Amino acid sequence: MQLPNPIGWTAGGAIRLLDQTLLPGEERYLELDSVESVAEAIRSLRVRGAPLIGIAAAMGVAGAGRRGGGAAGQGDGLAEVRRAVAVLGATRPTAINLHWALRRMERRAERAVKTGEELGTALRTEAQAIWDEDRAMCERIGALGAPLIPAGATVGTICNAGVLATGGIGSALAPIYHLHRVGRGPRVVVPETRPLLQGSRLTAWELSRAGVDCTVIADGMIASRLRLGDVACVLVGADRIAANGDVANKIGTYGLALAARAHQVPLYVLAPTSTIDPAVPDGASIPIELREPDEVTGWRGVRTAAEGVPAWNPAFDVTPAELVTAIVTDRGVVPPGQISRLMD
Amino acid sequence: MQLPNPIGWTAGGAIRLLDQTLLPGEERYLELDSVESVAEAIRSLRVRGAPLIGIAAAMGVAGAGRRGGGAAGQGDGLAEVRRAVAVLGATRPTAINLHWALRRMERRAERAVKTGEELGTALRTEAQAIWDEDRAMCERIGALGAPLIPAGATVGTICNAGVLATGGIGSALAPIYHLHRVGRGPRVVVPETRPLLQGSRLTAWELSRAGVDCTVIADGMIASRLRLGDVACVLVGADRIAANGDVANKIGTYGLALAARAHQVPLYVLAPTSTIDPAVPDGASIPIELREPDEVTGWRGVRTAAEGVPAWNPAFDVTPAELVTAIVTDRGVVPPGQISRLMD
Repeated sequence: MQLPNPIGWTAGGAIRLLDQTLLPGEERYLELDSVESVAEAIRSLRVRGAPLIGIAAAMGVAGAGRRGGGAAGQGDGLAEVRRAVAVLGATRPTAINLHWALRRMERRAERAVKTGEELGTALRTEAQAIWDEDRAMCERIGALGAPLIPAGATVGTICNAGVLATGGIGSALAPIYHLHRVGRGPRVVVPETRPLLQGSRLTAWELSRAGVDCTVIADGMIASRLRLGDVACVLVGADRIAANGDVANKIGTYGLALAARAHQVPLYVLAPTSTIDPAVPDGASIPIELREPDEVTGWRGVRTAAEGVPAWNPAFDVTPAELVTAIVTDRGVVPPGQISRLMD
Repeated sequence: MQLPNPIGWTAGGAIRLLDQTLLPGEERYLELDSVESVAEAIRSLRVRGAPLIGIAAAMGVAGAGRRGGGAAGQGDGLAEVRRAVAVLGATRPTAINLHWALRRMERRAERAVKTGEELGTALRTEAQAIWDEDRAMCERIGALGAPLIPAGATVGTICNAGVLATGGIGSALAPIYHLHRVGRGPRVVVPETRPLLQGSRLTAWELSRAGVDCTVIADGMIASRLRLGDVACVLVGADRIAANGDVANKIGTYGLALAARAHQVPLYVLAPTSTIDPAVPDGASIPIELREPDEVTGWRGVRTAAEGVPAWNPAFDVTPAELVTAIVTDRGVVPPGQISRLMD
């Protein structure tokens, strides 16, 4: 099973990042060695997917710690780390994993300064731990989610919650890869996910590279596709899960959830526990990122809509807990109303 | 109110057709003077919209009658007409107006031959009558639909059921233009309608030219947009309405209808009576056109999906009658279950 590496370290300690905006046409890797370049990559969606954003941000903070901790004293290093946390934390508002990873890196930096550890080494180790833990969480999500997929099934998804969105085999796609490894992978229906086409550009790319049978549809075809009756379940990721089980995920998930409910197709949300935000009581309290209208009125700089016509471009929507059959995390499969049980 | 002319006659009796595939970037008119060129224009969606396809096909048959009736005798003219009807009838399977207009032209040709009328003149007059009647039906749909839109409302639609889809001010958009003329037009939310973007390319273009306030969204944003609570109703066209009130319309309409139902937003289907097919008992019996997968895996020849990945591309879906609040035709506003009343 051939999986891409969306992120890595260079020999010099910089971040080696697959520029996802160029996929599937071009497979180009960037070397990012400044907080600003990492922030730009997150804002521009060169790296995206809630868990992978968290990993990239942690690696960005580690770089800041290395540079700050090396040149100046440990105190200056901590200031540099805090500046990095502020810059990276301001890139995207919805995915909670970003803030979770940044808080963890900042706390680690504080401890390193207190105990006199070398800041760069401590933070690189912590970023690597965040990545390794995410990879392990993906594996557990895959193992826990796999039994939900009947043998020989076709499943649906949306956007990209796979290898390109995480530090491992994905969240929503993890059970698919888990089963595919042993020759029992389902077929996958992939909505293209406008405006930025993470479904057709990214999910179809990584699934087909891995040898998983997939079919792309336009987002408006989802309800018709579910009506055919052969989609056993829908697997989606999450950018933030509220305490009541409401789920913020890529725009289009809510409409997909309504269509799934109308056809009695189970909807599973798969995400690492770092996606759960117990501080947010419900979906209405999750900040939804509004992006530039030109993502909707055009494609790669070519205007598709009439000149001068405005557009609305929320990057995420909220699927209410009552439309979610179960939430699959690395700690277990629970009904959405019991998500807080996992946070003890 | 500035409205485009999607179709017309040239001085020589050919069809002058706005090539809708090039909108909104380019406003280019084609001169079509053969049945094959008209058939190609319909198949390639240079002209689209169920009523306008019917008009274009009727004009194409008129051209065949003129050429056939002129050069040869009336009997050869009739053969030419029947050949035209066969070629044009094979272009697109779902929209019933096409077949309705072709049957009507063929019957008119038979009568002309029987009564010794000049075939070309008789058929041009009949095609013009089909067009004029459609224009008048659009006006009546506008007048009958307007009271369904509350003052100061925002309404939703999908695809293009406007000036570019009919011989007049549209079907779904007719009440909007009707109210806009007297300064009481609603704001319109326009889903882009992938794969071919008839919403952002065509509807947003004609509405903004006419001065109607509109906003484009991606198709996956529909459910979120309706949840905001300010969309008073949704107005959609139809390609075929079955005897039980099930409605075939542009792919995405069914998902829109599910989202409208979930938010208690009325869904109105607006169409001329030529769209009703009493011979088809229900939506399951309506043939749904499957188009080439490359419309979904790319945009204007540029591949957006990973190479080699297949796509599913039905051009239409079926919205069951129970999701339709009312059907607005030129003969009245009726609950979908009573659509057959209009056909007496």
